[in-house]
Amino acid sequence: MRRWNGWGDDSIDFSINSDALAFLQQRIGKGLPATDATLAQACSGVPASRLPAHRLVSTTGEVRMRNSLGQSLPDWLKMRFGKIDSFPDGVAFPESADQVRELLAYASACGAAVIPYGGGTSVVGHLSVPHGAQPVLSMNMSRLSSLLNLDKKAQLARFGAGVFGPDLEAQLRAHGYTLGHFPQSFEYSTLGGWVVTRSSGQQSLRYGRIEQMFAGGKLETPAGTLDIPTFPASAAGTDLREMVLGSEGRIGILTEAVVRVTPLPECEVFHAVFFPDWDAAQEAIRHIAQAKLPLSMLRLSNATETLTTLTLAGHKKLIAALETYLGWRGCKENKCLLMIGATGHKATVKNAINTAMRIARKQNGVPVGQAMGQKWKQNRFRSVYLRNSLWQQGYAIDTVETACDWPKVKGMMLAVEQAATDALAECGELVHTYTHLSHVYAQGASVYTTFAYRLSGNYEQDLARWQTLKAAVCEAIVSIGGTISHQHGVGTDHAPYLSAEKGELGIAAMRHLYRHFDPSGMMNPGKLLPPEETASI
Amino acid sequence: MRRWNGWGDDSIDFSINSDALAFLQQRIGKGLPATDATLAQACSGVPASRLPAHRLVSTTGEVRMRNSLGQSLPDWLKMRFGKIDSFPDGVAFPESADQVRELLAYASACGAAVIPYGGGTSVVGHLSVPHGAQPVLSMNMSRLSSLLNLDKKAQLARFGAGVFGPDLEAQLRAHGYTLGHFPQSFEYSTLGGWVVTRSSGQQSLRYGRIEQMFAGGKLETPAGTLDIPTFPASAAGTDLREMVLGSEGRIGILTEAVVRVTPLPECEVFHAVFFPDWDAAQEAIRHIAQAKLPLSMLRLSNATETLTTLTLAGHKKLIAALETYLGWRGCKENKCLLMIGATGHKATVKNAINTAMRIARKQNGVPVGQAMGQKWKQNRFRSVYLRNSLWQQGYAIDTVETACDWPKVKGMMLAVEQAATDALAECGELVHTYTHLSHVYAQGASVYTTFAYRLSGNYEQDLARWQTLKAAVCEAIVSIGGTISHQHGVGTDHAPYLSAEKGELGIAAMRHLYRHFDPSGMMNPGKLLPPEETASI
Repeated sequence: MRRWNGWGDDSIDFSINSDALAFLQQRIGKGLPATDATLAQACSGVPASRLPAHRLVSTTGEVRMRNSLGQSLPDWLKMRFGKIDSFPDGVAFPESADQVRELLAYASACGAAVIPYGGGTSVVGHLSVPHGAQPVLSMNMSRLSSLLNLDKKAQLARFGAGVFGPDLEAQLRAHGYTLGHFPQSFEYSTLGGWVVTRSSGQQSLRYGRIEQMFAGGKLETPAGTLDIPTFPASAAGTDLREMVLGSEGRIGILTEAVVRVTPLPECEVFHAVFFPDWDAAQEAIRHIAQAKLPLSMLRLSNATETLTTLTLAGHKKLIAALETYLGWRGCKENKCLLMIGATGHKATVKNAINTAMRIARKQNGVPVGQAMGQKWKQNRFRSVYLRNSLWQQGYAIDTVETACDWPKVKGMMLAVEQAATDALAECGELVHTYTHLSHVYAQGASVYTTFAYRLSGNYEQDLARWQTLKAAVCEAIVSIGGTISHQHGVGTDHAPYLSAEKGELGIAAMRHLYRHFDPSGMMNPGKLLPPEETASI
Repeated sequence: MRRWNGWGDDSIDFSINSDALAFLQQRIGKGLPATDATLAQACSGVPASRLPAHRLVSTTGEVRMRNSLGQSLPDWLKMRFGKIDSFPDGVAFPESADQVRELLAYASACGAAVIPYGGGTSVVGHLSVPHGAQPVLSMNMSRLSSLLNLDKKAQLARFGAGVFGPDLEAQLRAHGYTLGHFPQSFEYSTLGGWVVTRSSGQQSLRYGRIEQMFAGGKLETPAGTLDIPTFPASAAGTDLREMVLGSEGRIGILTEAVVRVTPLPECEVFHAVFFPDWDAAQEAIRHIAQAKLPLSMLRLSNATETLTTLTLAGHKKLIAALETYLGWRGCKENKCLLMIGATGHKATVKNAINTAMRIARKQNGVPVGQAMGQKWKQNRFRSVYLRNSLWQQGYAIDTVETACDWPKVKGMMLAVEQAATDALAECGELVHTYTHLSHVYAQGASVYTTFAYRLSGNYEQDLARWQTLKAAVCEAIVSIGGTISHQHGVGTDHAPYLSAEKGELGIAAMRHLYRHFDPSGMMNPGKLLPPEETASI
């Protein structure tokens, strides 16, 4: 069964090996495990619902508790410490667009706010329930999950937008097709969630971001239904899909999405290459990206992430042998690991890998074959379970991500890591921080940084610690000129930093546009736009 | 010097050979050449300006006349018959964003409408000057044309948005780079015009549409400056670039645009392949597009366009020999010509062409080498000059284009051609109509149809003839489910058909968004949005 207070299925544990734990303890000190609140404790705080009864709306305490949060670190703190202080007044599970329209009308009549809920995997507070007098209806989309149409000639598939990643892929695979969208949250995130948060999957280099996959669909808004037809391309004014992409529930509920699919690939490989240091590795990955090869993934870890990955892998003797070999080839303590994926026809895959390796070797890259890549593929959706086991050891894991043009990439990485280190030093704590570039483009890359640090065991102190860290890294990102998010979205946590890239005029334009679809401001209030607005809702 | 009443430079004639002329006469009858109005006659109708003097605004008659129209067929009728009945009251040639802001403030103070003018190549009425009491300022952007910055590491170039295609490419080529955007209007269209009309170039398969190239920029709007920074990708809410793309002057004036560029390619080839008939050819081009090969162009002519191309080519004996060979290989009277371009590294180009040819041969495609492709490349920007020489022979040439998903492509081509034939039959005239697919995608293709028919020599009759034809083909497009434009935009001519794809809610959202940037409705009124709105301005 799905964990109510952590990641994933509660039958799956991905525990940390003793060497890795010792490594972490040596770097940031021994964790202080605390006792988690129980499910009963978490539900005991659910107040009476302020919504009138409706046949499609559940007001059961546990259902409301399970739909009250996402997966951000402050969300975890609330769940683990039993501090959830805001719950939707009811949760609806619509099974059709008609029911969504009926529920929007009901919410409007009750003066309720509506929070669209996909898989509950947001890490930036998209699902937080606002405090205040306004009742809140959570719209859980999980029952709108069918493949409604597959047009093989046009390679277009229409789905209910609440479909989860694995269910979507299974329905396509039965026909020999794939969408190819694999964010780390794949197992629990939904198609609709991907679209409205501009998600990007691990193999975006081949399949594109969700923006490139989303061909059309249906959105139910307080102002009516927006039905977006599919065209391969169009010059007919403003692209309505772009009003839906990244709208984070502010303009309505996506009930159906048409996506661009491809036949299942003939083959898929993941190769690992080590570089002596970051500069060589970044130069190689930039040249590979700019060569526009038909690869499916490029993922470059910095030296600390490479060290962490090798430590987490276990297999101490094997890794020692590998490190000896790499050392002899010039890849020593500053070595960086690049993972290169290619997917498609055999001949194309072979050519692409060969060309990429040629570029890598020019920067002293040392290819080490497919074993590490295969391991990565096996664990691609499991490593996120580490968050559970580290929590049990008294450690918090958080991540931030941005994207910037190539000239800023290295400086961004250094600044974000430094900001985190400085911020936790203020709290008297060490942080184990490491970074990878997970999505690369001809113009630049995403920069994805992970922070591991100790929990204090005190809710207020841990929340303050996170707030200090988060503010410091977000300020570093915007001051260097990165976007506040490459793939997680804005939600509540990034909203204060959005003006830095949109400008006041841009923010006002977004607000103005959303109000067209949602004149009363009932849709996911307080999310995405900077907080000044929330006062007026 | 640039022709004031036709296409291109008046030192360039691209005259039709006698066989091709005979071919056309045989199909639709002998043309009736009429006498064109003179430049002096066209300027004689320019009334007194209603704008107060401003040091940056020219009110000279000839300048105002030359900025009053684009290149649509109704625009040509007005120019050739001396029937231009609406002129801007003044034309400004700003040299900086400051001057643009100053001019917007001036226009606002005068209660004037502003029409942004790039290269004047619109074929859908983007530049038409509204009748009525409101004075009109044309903002000619041609002096904002410099390369402001080239970041080779990030492959980003910042230009003044008024830069013409050849000037843009020349400035990049000096540094070893190219944008690769080659619409047929390339020689006279501008970067800013491409962005705000969602232009697509002939090699979009490699370089992308302008949407994919446009990375950021600066827009001066009545509500202030919108400064859009560059990111390789972002999940931070609504993408502001998408508010600018396709906005057709309704929200402001683009003064700078940053575009994604690439190093000049190592090699470029264009191969020709013939197919026995349309069905085989379409099947081949769809499979090639869906194989996602690194090609730069796929352009498939139907049987009538193929026949027309061969006839226009001249070289009667060579063509006869080619046709004998093709006939022997099964490509007879229904044969269709596919042009395949590939651009980039030599090895990649070779692989891509080989794979494409393998797919083509499965559909009985007959490759005939590179000679025809080279000829096409030489004449890629010259064939549009044919419009001048055919006009002199008493013939009008017009085109429409759309895009739709693969299952609709053939039906769309047949319906558009039939609609044109039926419409002109009503007027007692024949039409020579032919079609190609010029931009292909995994999901579908653009469908580009050309019409040649006789002019009557009477302005009102020729305008009515065009109106009948245009309405019939646009209705066919929307009834079959194509977009009203794949690459020309909306302007005035397509505005009545936009609701078919945007829906009333979508149209209202666009209108609402534009008003945010332009509260008084002074920016290019009457364009893009359906005509109901114009009454209220």
